[in-house]
Amino acid sequence: MESSHDSVVRIALLGCGNVGAALVELLSDPARREELRQRTNLDLQLVGIGVRDLNKQRSSASWFPSDLVTDDLDGLLGRDDIDLVVELLGGIEPAAGFIRSSLEHGRPVVSANKALLAEQGVALSALAADNGVDLNFEAAVAGAVPVIRTLRISLAGESVNRVLGIVNGTTNYILSTMATEGSDYAHVLGDAIALGLAEADPTADVEGFDAAAKAAILAGLAFGSVVPLDQVFREGITKIRSVDMAFARQFGYCIKLLAIAERVGDDEMSVRVHPAMVPLSHPLAQVDGAYNAVFIEGMAAGSLMLYGQGAGGMPTASAVLGDIIDAARNAATKSPAPALSNDANYSVIALDSLTSEFYISLDVVDQSGVLAQVTKVFGDHNVSIRSMEQVGIGEEARLIFLTHEATERDLAATIHDLEALSVVDAVGGVIRVIGQSEDL
Amino acid sequence: MESSHDSVVRIALLGCGNVGAALVELLSDPARREELRQRTNLDLQLVGIGVRDLNKQRSSASWFPSDLVTDDLDGLLGRDDIDLVVELLGGIEPAAGFIRSSLEHGRPVVSANKALLAEQGVALSALAADNGVDLNFEAAVAGAVPVIRTLRISLAGESVNRVLGIVNGTTNYILSTMATEGSDYAHVLGDAIALGLAEADPTADVEGFDAAAKAAILAGLAFGSVVPLDQVFREGITKIRSVDMAFARQFGYCIKLLAIAERVGDDEMSVRVHPAMVPLSHPLAQVDGAYNAVFIEGMAAGSLMLYGQGAGGMPTASAVLGDIIDAARNAATKSPAPALSNDANYSVIALDSLTSEFYISLDVVDQSGVLAQVTKVFGDHNVSIRSMEQVGIGEEARLIFLTHEATERDLAATIHDLEALSVVDAVGGVIRVIGQSEDL
Repeated sequence: MESSHDSVVRIALLGCGNVGAALVELLSDPARREELRQRTNLDLQLVGIGVRDLNKQRSSASWFPSDLVTDDLDGLLGRDDIDLVVELLGGIEPAAGFIRSSLEHGRPVVSANKALLAEQGVALSALAADNGVDLNFEAAVAGAVPVIRTLRISLAGESVNRVLGIVNGTTNYILSTMATEGSDYAHVLGDAIALGLAEADPTADVEGFDAAAKAAILAGLAFGSVVPLDQVFREGITKIRSVDMAFARQFGYCIKLLAIAERVGDDEMSVRVHPAMVPLSHPLAQVDGAYNAVFIEGMAAGSLMLYGQGAGGMPTASAVLGDIIDAARNAATKSPAPALSNDANYSVIALDSLTSEFYISLDVVDQSGVLAQVTKVFGDHNVSIRSMEQVGIGEEARLIFLTHEATERDLAATIHDLEALSVVDAVGGVIRVIGQSEDL
Repeated sequence: MESSHDSVVRIALLGCGNVGAALVELLSDPARREELRQRTNLDLQLVGIGVRDLNKQRSSASWFPSDLVTDDLDGLLGRDDIDLVVELLGGIEPAAGFIRSSLEHGRPVVSANKALLAEQGVALSALAADNGVDLNFEAAVAGAVPVIRTLRISLAGESVNRVLGIVNGTTNYILSTMATEGSDYAHVLGDAIALGLAEADPTADVEGFDAAAKAAILAGLAFGSVVPLDQVFREGITKIRSVDMAFARQFGYCIKLLAIAERVGDDEMSVRVHPAMVPLSHPLAQVDGAYNAVFIEGMAAGSLMLYGQGAGGMPTASAVLGDIIDAARNAATKSPAPALSNDANYSVIALDSLTSEFYISLDVVDQSGVLAQVTKVFGDHNVSIRSMEQVGIGEEARLIFLTHEATERDLAATIHDLEALSVVDAVGGVIRVIGQSEDL
């Protein structure tokens, strides 16, 4: 039953792929519409759906509003009966132009566009605030997991020390499957592509580009600073071997691709994406398959973890819907959330100076004196060894080291010299180890 | 450096116990103050600290504003230079009166008072909205874990199916320790009291009163309905035995005290607190010690879990601080969050009609024919047995059953008749089993 005091919000949707179609269902399916209106006292009306290709097959559900679909996006945004714009096109342009012009017309915008927000989030957010409306983007990082609002609002006064995120479902699925099945990377990736869990060209996921954009967004929120995407260190999962998985477990770790934003000293931050050995007792170690989780270490709050479905049409559309309701309510009272802060101006520290414990796997010839040569190289660069395992493999031997804390610089010099040793056939794997937060 | 555009917010704090003292530190310690101002563009000024007992020892830190402490709470709130009130007194009165009068004077209120919010949250929230200010209470449930804002804002448009919360740190510590040490309840409780992890009178925690208030708050938010506290079913942990813990693990479960809010059909909800067997593969099974977690199952969002420190001065003060900043910003633009909805008007379903799987432990005399008598009782009440274990204990035997789904009514009748059997010495433990959500 429509109540007369419901505020009408007329929504233009740009993009109707997986997430867009799920959002159309949430807004149009009569059963859901009624509950939504009752819960929110808002009458959310979809008034136009802008798409690139009119010929693409859409939902055949009876409630699907086929008459709203258009490929004239400029014409749609030129209408004067639009209250709010949802941007699900992805990519930089034309999405950025549509968002700017919508904000300049005083229309709140909800976007799930991680690439754009990583690149222009602070500027677009300032434009939104200048025009008295919201730019919300909960769905840009970790789908349904409410990490953006938690960092922007709940933790607005918190001194955040570190954020560790499993924010890419494809790579987490691949690593989880390698760990449970003992299969190799190439094999699991092939299966994932066949199952539709990875793109035919998986580069953006497996090389960490997707996670790097999310790391930049998370770091910007956590530290109130602009994070240029080209300053985010990035290393993908393509070199992870099933043998490293097995050794990791033997030492009490699993291997996850992490997006990391870390405060270093008083005015620097490290923002990076790389595979990491995570202690099996750490809550992130339990996050398997396509699930996402963001672990936040705050000075007062202690450790927090937010966990949930990081991808998929419905979960991501759920985050978009929450953003729509929040922006619509704020628009009604002309009180948007504050613009993203970049007052702190932390600079991104170079990887070289960071310290970490490291896992290193070496294939060496199986003869006496090898271990002495190898450990001398570690010692020459002040890299202290915490534990070592030796396994015979045919004519060769494999040495597995865990180091104490060492700088990236010293570690790189160590690896360089190890590769030059004639007794070392291959440096098989070098993986950073994540320490526990203090309160765990 | 104080910036001239920082908005000044003058705060009266009522209550200066563990959480209050931590909040004073966050607001007064010069190092923290400076970062806080930079992050928020707000100048948060503590202008009065109302306490019950002036003689109680307070912090001796140089920045502690002893001159602000007063036991004249009416006088403090009567001042006209107060912008925002933080209520950390606990209990119903005088806290409720202070909150009402503050809201009526157009002052936003931040409270961590779970008992009061469970009882009067909807009414106080309506009063806040009527006066154009916020009543925020993130710290009332699960300390630093941002579950209140997630349910109120991020999931405002979500159809929530079920909320499962580990929301009492004391009982979770006791159950976790019983599980790892194999110790008995009384022994672990004694240690917890000695360590200061449980109150000398632990009734509110171990009998589930604390969790029941939080269950009522969570259900009210999830389902937009008023939940009378006396309709929350409540069963504590005092009857849990270490032997039940061991059998639970053998069957693939752990035992947690859960606060549960569950949608039943179209217009009913179940709100309850009881020990539950949780599958070891469920994310809640990993939540140990004093940690809290809330697991939310939504129709579109899928499964979400929010995890963190549920108690302690600093984590709880962190949540209070986030609420202060949010309320102060909304007050500046006269745009409070919407009042808690009670439009849905779900009614609380009686426990009788609920279904669950059950764990049942029986001590029986060790003679032939016993199992036939016992299983006949199950059959008579249509309770189907999923699995059974039999263990000899001296002259007796112990029978452990897991049932298929059965109604509470049928199960109660079964237990009643089992107790009447001469071959049954004791019904040792009856524990409900929590099913997995569909997407896990």
